[in-house]
Amino acid sequence: MKEKLYIIKIGGALIDDPELLDQFLEQFSEIKEKKILVHGGGKLATTLADKLGVEQKMINGRRITDKETLDIVAMVYAGGINKNIVAKLQQKKCKAIGFSGADANLIKAKKREHPEIDFGFVGDIEKESVNRKLISKLIKLKLVPVFSAITHDKKGNLFNTNADTIASVMAQALSSKYDVELLYCFDKEGVLENVEDPGSVIKKVSEEEFSVLKEAGKLHKGILPKLENALGAVKNNVNKVFLIKETQLKNHIESHHGGTEICL
Amino acid sequence: MKEKLYIIKIGGALIDDPELLDQFLEQFSEIKEKKILVHGGGKLATTLADKLGVEQKMINGRRITDKETLDIVAMVYAGGINKNIVAKLQQKKCKAIGFSGADANLIKAKKREHPEIDFGFVGDIEKESVNRKLISKLIKLKLVPVFSAITHDKKGNLFNTNADTIASVMAQALSSKYDVELLYCFDKEGVLENVEDPGSVIKKVSEEEFSVLKEAGKLHKGILPKLENALGAVKNNVNKVFLIKETQLKNHIESHHGGTEICL
Repeated sequence: MKEKLYIIKIGGALIDDPELLDQFLEQFSEIKEKKILVHGGGKLATTLADKLGVEQKMINGRRITDKETLDIVAMVYAGGINKNIVAKLQQKKCKAIGFSGADANLIKAKKREHPEIDFGFVGDIEKESVNRKLISKLIKLKLVPVFSAITHDKKGNLFNTNADTIASVMAQALSSKYDVELLYCFDKEGVLENVEDPGSVIKKVSEEEFSVLKEAGKLHKGILPKLENALGAVKNNVNKVFLIKETQLKNHIESHHGGTEICL
Repeated sequence: MKEKLYIIKIGGALIDDPELLDQFLEQFSEIKEKKILVHGGGKLATTLADKLGVEQKMINGRRITDKETLDIVAMVYAGGINKNIVAKLQQKKCKAIGFSGADANLIKAKKREHPEIDFGFVGDIEKESVNRKLISKLIKLKLVPVFSAITHDKKGNLFNTNADTIASVMAQALSSKYDVELLYCFDKEGVLENVEDPGSVIKKVSEEEFSVLKEAGKLHKGILPKLENALGAVKNNVNKVFLIKETQLKNHIESHHGGTEICL
């Protein structure tokens, strides 16, 4: 039987709220099984870019990561946020070790290719991008990897990569070795039938149901990429995938209570 | 016989010069023996602080690291600079892995204590601060640790710590297990009899000679802490300690040519 491994993704809203983040990290540190944390960025990078007068470039409504923006996100994500999370986890006796994808070539990305748009320093990844051998070795040393969403191309360039995608792809890569449970933690109770009603959690969403919900316009924009990444994980042998509320992590681990399960 | 381990420190001027840095990293990546890189900060943090309107606070001529300054140096050192160095080394097929002292509790510092001055988020370290067991395990995985000069106190706080000191203390901590050679790389040919004359390199400096040179006012300010840290290493069983010019790393490794050796 494969050993259990939790891969847990947290995002912007949580990172921007120190008290909530601390509460979450407390729950995270209490998980007894093997675990990996993947974190997004929050508003800090945008705030810093604004202060420095670095404009956000958009082409056809898509965000471009130019060199100046990359320099900022690399600093903020892999430096400021990542090291602060690691220090807080260390305080809670969790053996956290912070990484970008460049470190030990843990996640090697390719610059995004697009027929019309040059996205700049945006890196796309696939299952083979993940250095699962080394990640397994680090986990075996009882370390708890904490990943920022910065990757590299092994040609000396850093990239900005979607954190939801990193969590999904890492879960896929590690599923051959571990019994992976992938948890997307966010500020909602799960996928909601009615976004205004926290009680309207849909307990299970399959690929088919996802299409129906999407067609019906019932999914707000923010949740779409999360669900697509979650489905990608399920389709690629990740054993369990859930969307849960950040404050419910402990409840979920202990009783699988609440949240939305994503399934085939 | 103990295995050879190079601990190599680089500083600001090199980090601020991309071309020179690349040349150095090329030489560093060619070292066949086990190795660790420790890097300082450069001007980037100061530039950023200026742009953000964060003033450098001084008390009695000593620099204070307040929370705003710490947030900046953590971002710049552990994020921007560290990850860029790691990405460049990965490009050169060196299995670099970037760390702050918070990661895996690799360097645990104590807030600097002083009877009159509160230095803020400045961390002091000693031999016992270094997690040498885990660093040895990482080195055994053929990884090349790259340390930024950010540490933590295991109480959730990050600290700014002198990079020269980190290199010295790490060399001391690892000398029980490895045959350590500590190299301080900087922009001079070594310790100079006459700072205007690159040909006036003093080949060896002992503790006694250091006192004589210091008394005679022959050492410029910048080199004093470097020499004190270098002597601290020699006195604590580090096998070899040199100050060399950054561009001479390869020459030094191959033939021990040039530079100043620090000895008892």
